Amino acid sequence: MTLDILTLSRRSVAAATDAAAMVEEIARSFMDTLAVAHAGRNEPVLRKLAALYGAEPAMPEHQALFNATAAHALDYDDLQFASVTHVSAVIVPALIAAAHAAPSWPQPRAMASAYLAGLDTARQVGTALGPAHYAAGWHATSTLGPLAAASAVARLWQLPLDQTRDALALATCQASGTQRSFGSMAKPLQAGLAASAGLRAAAWARQGISGPEHPFGAGGFETLYGGRHDSSPAPDDAPFLVDVGRKAYPCCYCAQRLVAAALSLRQQLQGVEGGIAPQAVRNVTIHAQEGTLLPLRITQPRDGNEAKFCADYVVAAALLDGGVGLRHFEAASLQRADLAALRGRIRVLQHGPRAGSIEDGVVWAQCELADGRVLQGAEIKYFPGSTQAPLTEAQLEAKLLDCHGGNDGAVQALKHTVRRWLGLSA
Amino acid sequence: MTLDILTLSRRSVAAATDAAAMVEEIARSFMDTLAVAHAGRNEPVLRKLAALYGAEPAMPEHQALFNATAAHALDYDDLQFASVTHVSAVIVPALIAAAHAAPSWPQPRAMASAYLAGLDTARQVGTALGPAHYAAGWHATSTLGPLAAASAVARLWQLPLDQTRDALALATCQASGTQRSFGSMAKPLQAGLAASAGLRAAAWARQGISGPEHPFGAGGFETLYGGRHDSSPAPDDAPFLVDVGRKAYPCCYCAQRLVAAALSLRQQLQGVEGGIAPQAVRNVTIHAQEGTLLPLRITQPRDGNEAKFCADYVVAAALLDGGVGLRHFEAASLQRADLAALRGRIRVLQHGPRAGSIEDGVVWAQCELADGRVLQGAEIKYFPGSTQAPLTEAQLEAKLLDCHGGNDGAVQALKHTVRRWLGLSA
Repeated sequence: MTLDILTLSRRSVAAATDAAAMVEEIARSFMDTLAVAHAGRNEPVLRKLAALYGAEPAMPEHQALFNATAAHALDYDDLQFASVTHVSAVIVPALIAAAHAAPSWPQPRAMASAYLAGLDTARQVGTALGPAHYAAGWHATSTLGPLAAASAVARLWQLPLDQTRDALALATCQASGTQRSFGSMAKPLQAGLAASAGLRAAAWARQGISGPEHPFGAGGFETLYGGRHDSSPAPDDAPFLVDVGRKAYPCCYCAQRLVAAALSLRQQLQGVEGGIAPQAVRNVTIHAQEGTLLPLRITQPRDGNEAKFCADYVVAAALLDGGVGLRHFEAASLQRADLAALRGRIRVLQHGPRAGSIEDGVVWAQCELADGRVLQGAEIKYFPGSTQAPLTEAQLEAKLLDCHGGNDGAVQALKHTVRRWLGLSA
Repeated sequence: MTLDILTLSRRSVAAATDAAAMVEEIARSFMDTLAVAHAGRNEPVLRKLAALYGAEPAMPEHQALFNATAAHALDYDDLQFASVTHVSAVIVPALIAAAHAAPSWPQPRAMASAYLAGLDTARQVGTALGPAHYAAGWHATSTLGPLAAASAVARLWQLPLDQTRDALALATCQASGTQRSFGSMAKPLQAGLAASAGLRAAAWARQGISGPEHPFGAGGFETLYGGRHDSSPAPDDAPFLVDVGRKAYPCCYCAQRLVAAALSLRQQLQGVEGGIAPQAVRNVTIHAQEGTLLPLRITQPRDGNEAKFCADYVVAAALLDGGVGLRHFEAASLQRADLAALRGRIRVLQHGPRAGSIEDGVVWAQCELADGRVLQGAEIKYFPGSTQAPLTEAQLEAKLLDCHGGNDGAVQALKHTVRRWLGLSA
């Protein structure tokens, strides 16, 4: 698909929705993003940013930087598969900062349309670049993020077509961030930089600052950022979608299905006397299609960040506690004797054929009881929280509550604020 | 040459000079940069930035953005050939903003060492990436600029080795800007963004924010930014150099030699009655080695920016006025009848063999007099202002004066300030 700055800009300007279901879905994106940002505010990188810019930064670009970094700090934020970007972590903070900077708080429809414009730009650009972009080593959240945020903010401020075009073009001048940052504080900061870059691009364009006239095409953005070159035209009439997968559990993307598989097995165990204890259950086996567990390389986690990438740890937590939450990645949980004991009875088997991509592949859990019976959980094909298996209202509510340390009042206030922003009934 | 973050950081920390000649050279860099920034402040992009951030921005990162954009706005600022970066336009504004942000104004030696550290980082990274980086389409000023500025600011603030390392690593996360921006306001802005990104990287590192541990190497920065892959080790003991070429004339780099050639011919014409007028001189021919004039594609300039890329226009200006200054690229000059008439008698001939690079190649000017004699100017091999043919004190003084609209008091004040910053006698 060929990228064309005018087509992208036209789509951004045209982004709009009145469909109630879609606005509800957008509200879920805002709630999910703001909840994980709230939980992320205690991470060390945020405390350091707060020391530099204040806990409530005064300037819009620092607000966007701070809140987008917070939203991505726990890696608990949503993902758009088409662009491999943590798209809402970039767009939502940029939009809120842009809303604060507007003369009056935006109309609900402007807020919803703006979010949609951002998602659409990320998907269009991500699809055009293809998987080659991420495979090369770019951090798509931070390279495509400025474009998504610029599109969203331009739409929120209702910039005309030519200024929207300059906003997108000025965003291409600020695309940076690589996967080498993974494991350092720079990873969430790259989401923060993307949000502030997008906001800046829109503010500059509104002031009449011109960007490159032809940012795309052979030798341009796609070439430099390792994208594929496919000259099929962009589908001008592609629908506007809310196509984000929300994480159900605060651990590695590839661990999400394991948790779901463990929870399904746990249901089977409900009737067994003694539950998951050794006197009732001899061992638990996770069966996973080969290629579905690649990032889960940690076998002896030393801290919470490592535990997020340890397969038997997350399975044990799900089996014992009926879910996996933020507390499982705090220091105290790593010391729990019951988790350690159960982990010793869990094994992970990988089966061929190898899954085609991170999205493909099936996992399931089974256990052998002390009496010799074998119980088997359901096959989990889709990531819990993905667009094929979206979070239920109850799951989202539980996540919001977990992110707010169990403070239901804070969760209700957040939900109320978001519903008001988007013009939804309380 | 392989890039190694530790070697780069060690060099930055070690950068220092007491050599009087080198400090004088550094002073020239500051004066040259601040003078072109002063002249650039009236460009439209700066007026738009001023409307957003104020003419004297309060925050260090906006000061760096504003002043580096101004320094590059006229394309009259210096160039480091080894990295193809307008290196001082990025480093000097970042350093001045960092100095303002320090608890007290830095010691002269810190200022000189910091500038040297920035140049050195740009040269090391630029040499390692090789010409492939620029040839791919990256704007090296804005991709390598953050590294140069981060190194300079880290040295100014005397950050320890580990924080200098994080500063450089955090700069790699912010490398952006492509040649597609040339011709739009984004070109100078990319220098501004580089300066503020470098300052930000150093400020973040000082706060304890970590960057990627291994930003370089196969699959890292060099790979993503189109550099070559050459595994020879970096010369750890390479000298610290002030290796910048300063522009003598406010036009395209490739037009600089044409102006020098025309001025040499003008000297030959001093004794000719009637000077350059048609009754004395039939025609002027510029001889240029093939490949030395590539960017000079404009034949009918419509404005000053286009005139900077018009070979016969700059030659005519030099022949008539004995030099080329900022006024030659203002609207009134494009209407001058004498310039138009002389341009009609100038032709440009290109000769083989083709020059190996933009740095190579020879140009000279000759004229045929009305009486049949032929006068020939000197062969110009080196760019006027380059390290091989540096600006004389008189040429630099003339440039500073031109940039200040002829206000000698302002020039003396600038020189005094810079000499004080660097601990030089007045």
